[in-house]
Amino acid sequence: MEQELQNTVLLLERTPAGLNALLRDLPDAWTLRDEGENTWSVFGVIGHLVHLERTDWMTRVKRILEFGETRSFEQVDRSGHVRECEGKSLNRLLDEFARLRAENLDELRGLNLGRKDLERTGRHPALGVVTLSNLLAAWAAHDMTHLHQISRIMAHQYREAVGPWSKFLGVLQCGGHSASA
Amino acid sequence: MEQELQNTVLLLERTPAGLNALLRDLPDAWTLRDEGENTWSVFGVIGHLVHLERTDWMTRVKRILEFGETRSFEQVDRSGHVRECEGKSLNRLLDEFARLRAENLDELRGLNLGRKDLERTGRHPALGVVTLSNLLAAWAAHDMTHLHQISRIMAHQYREAVGPWSKFLGVLQCGGHSASA
Repeated sequence: MEQELQNTVLLLERTPAGLNALLRDLPDAWTLRDEGENTWSVFGVIGHLVHLERTDWMTRVKRILEFGETRSFEQVDRSGHVRECEGKSLNRLLDEFARLRAENLDELRGLNLGRKDLERTGRHPALGVVTLSNLLAAWAAHDMTHLHQISRIMAHQYREAVGPWSKFLGVLQCGGHSASA
Repeated sequence: MEQELQNTVLLLERTPAGLNALLRDLPDAWTLRDEGENTWSVFGVIGHLVHLERTDWMTRVKRILEFGETRSFEQVDRSGHVRECEGKSLNRLLDEFARLRAENLDELRGLNLGRKDLERTGRHPALGVVTLSNLLAAWAAHDMTHLHQISRIMAHQYREAVGPWSKFLGVLQCGGHSASA
């Protein structure tokens, strides 16, 4: 389906509450373990979501509106989540994600974007020309990419424990897919 | 990690609230569309979770405790979700999932399973001998399999809308993995 701004916002505003309900107060065994060398824990993923909420999505929306294709987006700092996580608990990161997302969606609604605005174009440093509509759809799909990753990280912790069931559990067949924003 | 009953229960009890926060009142564009022929919508997935909560997991726990390996589990009816969904809204299915899950976990806690109990064995009609510990770990990992599927179904709806971002969004590279219980 086409990106429909209202549908995008409805999904974006639910993600923090969904992750909060799923993850708050879970023991470290679920949230601090990863899938092996050079992979992220659930804690790291939430730090990444906080980091992009602070630095990326709305900044890019405003850059398109202000500069169009004449000024590229900044690169995403893919290790920005490390600083974002330092000295924080998972619960604190979940709170920050909820607060930043709510502020960003307030700002987005305040822009009163119309259909013509959604066709405006900007420049991604790696992907080239993208529309504002692409950017907003990618924001929502990026939430889903990391929900997909979180479910896989958590299932991985029980890879041995499920015994013969492993071949029936789709998430355990998922090798992961490099993801960026 | 080994299946730890307490950690398993902590995850199992959060799944309904997580799905509820993510999905309740979302428009049909997110919840009724699928990934193409012979694939499920989010609505169908929740129906499947309700169906297994009603017929499968705790029934199998009790069968192991009562019959050990002498009496196989029933086959899962993989189209049981169709009847489960008939005439119901997504919100009603989410309510049923929350209620049935809470009842099942109450019953599970009431069994006061000890380490020796978790080593008891039963017989799966396709997988052969499994332990009670395997079964409980699979219950939790099965939640994650379907969370993984839900995130993929929803991202799929924006496959075109994200434009050039599709190659950076891991969930859009996931071809899916047949999953069962």
